[in-house]
Amino acid sequence: MARVAVVYFSGSGHTHLMAEAVAQGAASVGETTVDLLRITGEQITNGRWRDDGVMDVLNRADAIVFGSPTYMGGVAAQFKAFVDAASGIWFQQGWKDKLAGGFTHSGSPSGDKQGTLLYLAINAAQHGMVWVGSAEMPDATGVNRLGSFLGVMGQSPLDTSGAPPTLDAGDRETARRYGQLIAQIAQRWRQVADQPER
Amino acid sequence: MARVAVVYFSGSGHTHLMAEAVAQGAASVGETTVDLLRITGEQITNGRWRDDGVMDVLNRADAIVFGSPTYMGGVAAQFKAFVDAASGIWFQQGWKDKLAGGFTHSGSPSGDKQGTLLYLAINAAQHGMVWVGSAEMPDATGVNRLGSFLGVMGQSPLDTSGAPPTLDAGDRETARRYGQLIAQIAQRWRQVADQPER
Amino acid sequence: MARVAVVYFSGSGHTHLMAEAVAQGAASVGETTVDLLRITGEQITNGRWRDDGVMDVLNRADAIVFGSPTYMGGVAAQFKAFVDAASGIWFQQGWKDKLAGGFTHSGSPSGDKQGTLLYLAINAAQHGMVWVGSAEMPDATGVNRLGSFLGVMGQSPLDTSGAPPTLDAGDRETARRYGQLIAQIAQRWRQVADQPER
Amino acid sequence: MARVAVVYFSGSGHTHLMAEAVAQGAASVGETTVDLLRITGEQITNGRWRDDGVMDVLNRADAIVFGSPTYMGGVAAQFKAFVDAASGIWFQQGWKDKLAGGFTHSGSPSGDKQGTLLYLAINAAQHGMVWVGSAEMPDATGVNRLGSFLGVMGQSPLDTSGAPPTLDAGDRETARRYGQLIAQIAQRWRQVADQPER
Repeated sequence: MARVAVVYFSGSGHTHLMAEAVAQGAASVGETTVDLLRITGEQITNGRWRDDGVMDVLNRADAIVFGSPTYMGGVAAQFKAFVDAASGIWFQQGWKDKLAGGFTHSGSPSGDKQGTLLYLAINAAQHGMVWVGSAEMPDATGVNRLGSFLGVMGQSPLDTSGAPPTLDAGDRETARRYGQLIAQIAQRWRQVADQPER
Repeated sequence: MARVAVVYFSGSGHTHLMAEAVAQGAASVGETTVDLLRITGEQITNGRWRDDGVMDVLNRADAIVFGSPTYMGGVAAQFKAFVDAASGIWFQQGWKDKLAGGFTHSGSPSGDKQGTLLYLAINAAQHGMVWVGSAEMPDATGVNRLGSFLGVMGQSPLDTSGAPPTLDAGDRETARRYGQLIAQIAQRWRQVADQPER
Repeated sequence: MARVAVVYFSGSGHTHLMAEAVAQGAASVGETTVDLLRITGEQITNGRWRDDGVMDVLNRADAIVFGSPTYMGGVAAQFKAFVDAASGIWFQQGWKDKLAGGFTHSGSPSGDKQGTLLYLAINAAQHGMVWVGSAEMPDATGVNRLGSFLGVMGQSPLDTSGAPPTLDAGDRETARRYGQLIAQIAQRWRQVADQPER
Repeated sequence: MARVAVVYFSGSGHTHLMAEAVAQGAASVGETTVDLLRITGEQITNGRWRDDGVMDVLNRADAIVFGSPTYMGGVAAQFKAFVDAASGIWFQQGWKDKLAGGFTHSGSPSGDKQGTLLYLAINAAQHGMVWVGSAEMPDATGVNRLGSFLGVMGQSPLDTSGAPPTLDAGDRETARRYGQLIAQIAQRWRQVADQPER
């Protein structure tokens, strides 16, 4: 039994579709509980984020997958407000030894998304978490079509038509496989954690 | 006549002291107008920052120096909220050809502050700005004692005594020289900008 | 009169095509001397690169544009050997105040190329150089189609046919405009440098 | 039974001392085989590194810890030549699912060492490896005195006296604990790997 939490912010809805795909992949692995947690601007007061319920779920997770659009070359401010709110947990190293992963979305193929994934890995390392990359080579079906390795990238052209957001099929499958991989590793990591103390 | 704006967030007050030193250095260069603009959490509503007055000053500047503490391995969420609010300006490339620089502060000598400066440079590049690094070699007087090149780093040990924040003398001098350098380059860049269009 | 040097390594030849486009763009600006300098493995002995002629040209340049393929997530080792050989110049800050820029190429749209550009900017900052980004928004003609801002990215699918390398037309035009921009800024920077000392 | 390999380049000898401390920490964990593999310039011909014996050891390892000085803001060219030589292994994803970690050394407290650790993590992610950070909070004994989380940093002032290199006691202890952590995780990861296929 392993617990995978996917915590993310989404503005236009594309990152939400990626989060759903990661969650679906994780849920496809037996004996896995998946929590999909969306950060919103409403949880932020005077620049500070707070939602004790979300933190409780994250504190119980074996793996946390972090997701944010790439806005202006980095994670969205709303997502960073969540990250900063975990500084008390960091100080206690409450997430130490958990697994971590990340995903991001923007409007261009490169679009400075690598910087966002690097940031997510930096933050996870501060928490003492172990980072699981996407571990998928680009292939002809569209899996990892953008060529990302630290985590999963999605890309959609800017659309001002007002139509519901969609996600490239290759990006979706990449995200789904990533969720699956993380749940598999979490299962085994969990078995390990259930053994005598390291 | 050149205009240098220093826009920053500060929680504990250390980054504020760095901002003041940058501003002091810039103001020491003749015919330079310096604006010191502090981002606050109160300017953020539902996760979104807005302050038209601050943006007006930035739009008129020849050089913008960005400053933020390094929190959880990156810029503070409040600072990122300001950055995200400039996405409309980015879309119009309203800050194109301006000079940019950056500074950050944290509690450890390294403390993942390089990641923050890298982020500030990424954001400036998205805006089409030209990045001016600190251009100071570490020396025996404490200038650039931490060994930072993309911008200026400050570091102070965690202090929970409640005493007013202080800044290392070497870090302060490094920040002051950086302000001076940026104002000097802004003066000359401005002369250039006053010439026929590039 | 300004001098722009383009110094690069190329394995498969794609980065060479980008270097040529940058040089062509720079040469299109009046009164600009352009040097195209290719780093080769033969210049490396026991892991150390040396070519005094190349260094002499770089020492005289007003702007240096650095180029390397992205191999295994970073600059090619051969290019890094050149960079390391400039540590003596760094120690003397011999390239201080020169303009810098960068470009890279790989087989995937993202392909961890942002990390390479970040590295090139870090190295330039160590040298006290001023960094000029690409300053082009992605447009419908293919200019900046990958969405890169710190410098220029090119991408070509893996081709094992043995045919001569080619470069995407949008990537080529982005590189050409970048060379032009750098030469223009170098012209004006040079005028500035010819004025009394900063 | 787990195998930990430490592969590194060292110029001045400081990174070698760090590598020894990592190896010592790993060897202190029962049933762990540790290989200490030093990259040298002599292994490089025409810019390309080759040493089949080193690669054989790495291919058998459960965990690979990568180490390089930070030269000019990144890994040493000699180390990068080794990294590039693993591109064939990467293409086959031969190191997929192995554990990875990293360490670096330079002459300044910050000294752009974070960029080196970020690069090591990027490369490991390309290989499909799982990244283990240092997971040590800075403490009063000097452990993690520099404030590094993705991996371990060491720092020594420039010394031109010709005396043998030394390593700060806190940096050494941080490196030793890191080796121990990686061996412990490798033991358990190995148990997991011995179970039915993921």
